Amino acid sequence: VIIELINTGSELMLGRVLNTHQQWLCRQLADRGYLVTRQIAVDDSATAIRQAVQDAMARADIVLVTGGLGPTSDDRTRDLIAELLGRSLREDPSVVAHIEGFFAGRKRPMPARTRVQALVPEGAQVLPNAHGTAPGLVLDLPSRRAGERPGLLILLPGPPRELRPMFTDQVVPLLSKQFPVAEPFVCHTLRTVGLGESLVEEKIADSLQRLVEAGLDIGYCARPGEVDVRLSARGGDAASTVAEAERLSRELLGDLVFGVEEEELETVVVRLLTARGQTVALAESCTGGLIAHRLTNVPGASVVLRAGLVVYSNVAKEIFLGVHAQTLAEHGAVSEAVAREMAEGARARTGADYAIAVTGIAGPGGGSVAKPVGTVWIALSTSRGTAAHHRVNPWDRETFKYVTSQQALDLLRQELSH
Amino acid sequence: VIIELINTGSELMLGRVLNTHQQWLCRQLADRGYLVTRQIAVDDSATAIRQAVQDAMARADIVLVTGGLGPTSDDRTRDLIAELLGRSLREDPSVVAHIEGFFAGRKRPMPARTRVQALVPEGAQVLPNAHGTAPGLVLDLPSRRAGERPGLLILLPGPPRELRPMFTDQVVPLLSKQFPVAEPFVCHTLRTVGLGESLVEEKIADSLQRLVEAGLDIGYCARPGEVDVRLSARGGDAASTVAEAERLSRELLGDLVFGVEEEELETVVVRLLTARGQTVALAESCTGGLIAHRLTNVPGASVVLRAGLVVYSNVAKEIFLGVHAQTLAEHGAVSEAVAREMAEGARARTGADYAIAVTGIAGPGGGSVAKPVGTVWIALSTSRGTAAHHRVNPWDRETFKYVTSQQALDLLRQELSH
Repeated sequence: VIIELINTGSELMLGRVLNTHQQWLCRQLADRGYLVTRQIAVDDSATAIRQAVQDAMARADIVLVTGGLGPTSDDRTRDLIAELLGRSLREDPSVVAHIEGFFAGRKRPMPARTRVQALVPEGAQVLPNAHGTAPGLVLDLPSRRAGERPGLLILLPGPPRELRPMFTDQVVPLLSKQFPVAEPFVCHTLRTVGLGESLVEEKIADSLQRLVEAGLDIGYCARPGEVDVRLSARGGDAASTVAEAERLSRELLGDLVFGVEEEELETVVVRLLTARGQTVALAESCTGGLIAHRLTNVPGASVVLRAGLVVYSNVAKEIFLGVHAQTLAEHGAVSEAVAREMAEGARARTGADYAIAVTGIAGPGGGSVAKPVGTVWIALSTSRGTAAHHRVNPWDRETFKYVTSQQALDLLRQELSH
Repeated sequence: VIIELINTGSELMLGRVLNTHQQWLCRQLADRGYLVTRQIAVDDSATAIRQAVQDAMARADIVLVTGGLGPTSDDRTRDLIAELLGRSLREDPSVVAHIEGFFAGRKRPMPARTRVQALVPEGAQVLPNAHGTAPGLVLDLPSRRAGERPGLLILLPGPPRELRPMFTDQVVPLLSKQFPVAEPFVCHTLRTVGLGESLVEEKIADSLQRLVEAGLDIGYCARPGEVDVRLSARGGDAASTVAEAERLSRELLGDLVFGVEEEELETVVVRLLTARGQTVALAESCTGGLIAHRLTNVPGASVVLRAGLVVYSNVAKEIFLGVHAQTLAEHGAVSEAVAREMAEGARARTGADYAIAVTGIAGPGGGSVAKPVGTVWIALSTSRGTAAHHRVNPWDRETFKYVTSQQALDLLRQELSH
């Protein structure tokens, strides 16, 4: 089944909004074994929409179009599609009733223009909109080649809270019925931290080669401080192929794998701490509060995070963590000795089971020959002692902060996993 | 000038990542007077990439392709483009040297596979990658029609922190030179905080109507805790039209305007503090370190940020800020009294000129009838006293944190602007 997705909207082409439909729809389809072959975004102009839909219909069995079904003058999709397929528009009484009910329920007058949303191309199936006024529309397409099954053109409203339930509740059942997935599809992502993309591949590629020949697809996606390994396969053996690939990858990557699918490192850390009934304190210099921010993005973090101290200045390190002025003077703020005293001070003052301390040079200024921009010391203090680690992360300021926060959270994760 | 953008990556088509390149590149181009006519995303397969690039080359003057230049086996763009244009690949010594230097600087061995990134199609211009190993590539395309100028095919690496500076520093000057915008285009964005999108529009729309009739284009872009007003015009009068629109908008919006173009609220706050030679301390409960994180994203923040205390627990509020146990018991952690004591404690203990404190209920749990999820108290303490402000931000956890951090930073900005 060839599926193409067309997102319409001038705000997309002007870069004013992020196209979240693409990720959401592609993921919904992929998880059900369908693959979107091509996604296209065009502006609201008649020429652009017409051309994009025509091109897609020539290639695909299913064409999904989002946006342009609303009541305003830049909502042109409905008219254009009717014209393109040579179908006249008629007013659908059930849609008129729905729009009237929608405004009546909100005790608001129904603007005259909204009635245009009840116009439906001849022969189209209406997908009622439970969360708005513009219905979705499904149109049969002529077969692209003789003997092939006819295709589908599916128009969906732009607002995510209208599109998403309509897709899940109405479009998915339609696809399953008219285009059942011929063979099973299984996709699984392992998330790793600690090695670059090519080194991750080096570790697993040879051993997985046999499975690749049997149909396994491997994808690598590098993000700052992290590499995702995506394992997928189709066919009767898909589940066992992906399971075997996961088993082998986990064996070869070991501790580098911190989670699966959408799971973030901070989520894993909060989960591990919660399961153990333990707590952490943070002493952040160069990461400037990012580690605390990431942990507190996870619901339930308040139970495991005792406190986070953002101590840029030497004075703050002394006042809040009890770092010795002499240590700062002798070793400098970015040093193993100061990282250790920060972690130990944070742990002692908060009574947390663990404390992480980071001190480093984020740049762009502040570097020297001995301690270049990117230099970091990370210390982890536990009931069994304190360990300090040296890292060099010579990135731009924000990437530096993020990569350093990954390394710090990962040290704690490793500690909690044993 | 017809520009098409192709984003490659199976992770896009499987819905595993959000396509942020589209928004970012479209916006960068739009702000400079170029419009992307069509954006296409395809997976990493040779067929899909080849077909998409061929189609785009037939239609566009400039084809931008992102992704697929890395070192792993699913990075196929370089090879495919060379094949498609009938150019052989040669190893570029300057790129090899750059990759070697990249790993040497990090004191890490250079993985053998990374060398593939030094392969450059014959005649291609290399765009050095200041933040990674894969260079960008620019190739001349044959004219689509006789007499027309030749086009450009521009390949950019996938990671945003590599792509973005490469685009701004190298691609933009290239486009300005080879495809200058025919008529002057002026685009200016005012950034506001404190009012919703329709209220911002209400404040300025009528007064700008005369300029709209003369060719001014106004765009509104709502983000969490912020509304951008984009003023643009084309033609000989563009500069004066936009300047007049800006003057009027600033007059009508007053203090709501905190910055222009890409400027963030935290940048403005650090600049104002730096100019005054003053400092700030933070006491964050519900924002969990986000305010500290945002301020420390700004180079030079270390001079103005005395300390940030992330004090989720009552105990931490007592230990680090001297909040009274009795105040916590009588009023609860989310209360005006506690916000005031947090701010005053942070200011007193750090000796900062200003202290901001936030305490609230981020959710999803922890709300009550009297204090629902989204309730926030923000206090600002200065040498002239402490003021506390009540807000209700009933959003999801991450949006709640962000909107609250905007409100807190904006209170300080307003204080510093007078």
